[in-house]
Amino acid sequence: MQTDTLIHARWVIPVEPEGITLDHHSVAITNGEIVSVMPSDRARQEVYADEIIELTDHALIPGLINAHTHAAMSMMRGYADDLPLDVWLNQHIWPAEARWVDEAYVQTGSELAIAEMIKSGTTCFNDMYFFGNVTGHVAIAAKMRAVIGLIVIDFPTQWAQNTDEYLSKASELHDEFRHTDLITTAFAPHAPYTVSDEALEKTRVLADELDVPIHIHVHETALEVTQAIAKNSVRPLERLSQMGLVTSRLLAVHMTQLLDAEIKTIATAGVHVLHCPKSNSKLANGFCPVRKLREAGVNIALGTDSAASNNTLDMLSEMRMAALVAKGSSLQATALPAAAALSMATINGARALGLDDRVGSIVVGKRADVTAINLKQVNTQPVYDAISQIVYSADRSQVSDVWIDGEHVLHNGTLTTMDEDKLLYDVQTLGDKIMASRFDTN
Amino acid sequence: MQTDTLIHARWVIPVEPEGITLDHHSVAITNGEIVSVMPSDRARQEVYADEIIELTDHALIPGLINAHTHAAMSMMRGYADDLPLDVWLNQHIWPAEARWVDEAYVQTGSELAIAEMIKSGTTCFNDMYFFGNVTGHVAIAAKMRAVIGLIVIDFPTQWAQNTDEYLSKASELHDEFRHTDLITTAFAPHAPYTVSDEALEKTRVLADELDVPIHIHVHETALEVTQAIAKNSVRPLERLSQMGLVTSRLLAVHMTQLLDAEIKTIATAGVHVLHCPKSNSKLANGFCPVRKLREAGVNIALGTDSAASNNTLDMLSEMRMAALVAKGSSLQATALPAAAALSMATINGARALGLDDRVGSIVVGKRADVTAINLKQVNTQPVYDAISQIVYSADRSQVSDVWIDGEHVLHNGTLTTMDEDKLLYDVQTLGDKIMASRFDTN
Repeated sequence: MQTDTLIHARWVIPVEPEGITLDHHSVAITNGEIVSVMPSDRARQEVYADEIIELTDHALIPGLINAHTHAAMSMMRGYADDLPLDVWLNQHIWPAEARWVDEAYVQTGSELAIAEMIKSGTTCFNDMYFFGNVTGHVAIAAKMRAVIGLIVIDFPTQWAQNTDEYLSKASELHDEFRHTDLITTAFAPHAPYTVSDEALEKTRVLADELDVPIHIHVHETALEVTQAIAKNSVRPLERLSQMGLVTSRLLAVHMTQLLDAEIKTIATAGVHVLHCPKSNSKLANGFCPVRKLREAGVNIALGTDSAASNNTLDMLSEMRMAALVAKGSSLQATALPAAAALSMATINGARALGLDDRVGSIVVGKRADVTAINLKQVNTQPVYDAISQIVYSADRSQVSDVWIDGEHVLHNGTLTTMDEDKLLYDVQTLGDKIMASRFDTN
Repeated sequence: MQTDTLIHARWVIPVEPEGITLDHHSVAITNGEIVSVMPSDRARQEVYADEIIELTDHALIPGLINAHTHAAMSMMRGYADDLPLDVWLNQHIWPAEARWVDEAYVQTGSELAIAEMIKSGTTCFNDMYFFGNVTGHVAIAAKMRAVIGLIVIDFPTQWAQNTDEYLSKASELHDEFRHTDLITTAFAPHAPYTVSDEALEKTRVLADELDVPIHIHVHETALEVTQAIAKNSVRPLERLSQMGLVTSRLLAVHMTQLLDAEIKTIATAGVHVLHCPKSNSKLANGFCPVRKLREAGVNIALGTDSAASNNTLDMLSEMRMAALVAKGSSLQATALPAAAALSMATINGARALGLDDRVGSIVVGKRADVTAINLKQVNTQPVYDAISQIVYSADRSQVSDVWIDGEHVLHNGTLTTMDEDKLLYDVQTLGDKIMASRFDTN
């Protein structure tokens, strides 16, 4: 067999089927597609390749999928910490955004986020932010896969003034990216408490028409639920249900507040939960009931949320946090085993985003979104179980190589599609301006 | 002023006082002691040094103090995961230890642990394991500071056969290290459920005599408390109290199960809590009530526990976990701010171990245990607040330099007192043997 690229790895962890580790296996790639996964001793005899890569101490996993983030908000990393969600948003983040968010800000913030994500093994992210056109083009330039959010929110921003403008820009954005290889879109109404019934209805109709997911924060805090009951007499999820939004198109982010009946409802409807354990903890919103959701058969994908509430976009540490707090909060050590956490960070994300026919596992016929992790470090030795080492012990600095759609975007720790020095300079320059104004407003 | 070493740093975070970040400051070291902390522009004029180090993008923090670990158990990293404490200990860890633990195992395991700790910025650890003599000498050779546990447990091991032998070996060990610079000792009775009243009484008497702390797992699980009530009619902490062990000499590890009255008792007595959030979560033991303990004024230090239940010895990620789950489990975003988490990982550990006159903060007169972290990475930019970046965003791979007692033990990422290649070879060799036998016994 003649191929473009042949990677010999110490371990290949395909994720489908879950929990399997293939010793001394190789992955062959042609035209950006995975064309073979086989034992290395056979591959060395049967496969010819233009480029051969030897990863003697590495595990190959499917590229990590960050199922919920706001990439450009990386510019707000550490801007305000140790505050509850409402104070954090209303008194710090939203005023700063009102002052700073424009195309240039989103450009630099998105570049920063994408650089961090690729370097930590993420190959696809599901974004929700203003100026999605800018983020989409940054992703294309970096050769990163992304789902761009078509934002809807009830208040005016630099991006749009009212519901009609948000929705018309949404359609434009969808059109802009519909013929690209790496970018798809999803409607992204911010949250039940910031989007009116009318705007949600219109969103539902358009999402059906364009056949894209609806990505929305739901039941993030107890306060959100209490206030919604006071205002609408029903819990937010019930309101969405009444409007016909609780379907398999729904990507419900956070979901820390869930009644048993609601878990049953979303399981039956095929709603996907986008779980952000670090953000939920940091903002003191509590814990998503992962154990119960898994028992009910709900598809749970994993996201970092933004670097302003996390404060990283590191899916390795997010997997670890998910596995640890699922056990700690349910008092059941089997609540989320390592292999299941890895599925949440890969194939489950692909399923939620409607991309599981293309990515999410190392399987012949899928696009080659693949991450290599070097386990020959003192913190990941000895290796009794490579999946355990990746989920519980490995750092993102051990991510050596990343391929997206077959493109070698991280080569032995170096970004090949981005200028990291220039990026750091741009980030510091913009950060200094924001810092200088921070003490005016706070 | 003439000094041995002068370090110019972008930021110095002394930890005492808490929350302060000094911009463009320098630290001068002579004979292993911090002799000056001053603005760099003044230091460049007033201080002469044999060695000058420029850390233009780095924060200097006090060396991290790992207040609870079992260093040699790093050889069991990933050996058994996703199991509750009793199954994990009784069916996996203890049988494997019975088969494998000897001086050579403890030598290799301790070397692995110390290499991982130094590379992640830890300069002192409080250990509890068999063959503490071996671990102590590995630490001395690596120029690492350590508190060696004087183990007491009711069952026979390769280390000792019965209480009298454990106690006589304890006294020998204490004697062996009493005149060293880097090693002190603490009694380490394993836990209330594995040590008899008689052995605990003798431990208390000897600890008073030698004036060392008593380091013990207490209230790690709900099961421990229930079983103790069934057996002794009182909760473990009450039993310790009746024996006169609840004093400021007590270092109580874990403490996930605490009544409000018990919090009051330990606050009044001056007990130190050694908090291990990752281990408590991974083993599904629940969450130590950090918010309540802080409100009661209890000194809380931070530990990783062993790499078999964590699965790292990384105090940066432990700080992050502590800060996140304190908020998530108390539903209060101010429960543990970043600066307080950094104190837990430094000065609070020093206080618990009786070493706060020597280490735990960057203060003139203390020994130079100092860690440098390079923040010029995509995942820690921009820097609005260096403490936030260290606690919430930095990885151990950003730890560039470490000094212990003034000795430059990590130099731009390279260990200067250990042979890392030989270590990795030794660990793999021993790990392969353990792996081969793993499927015989499990």
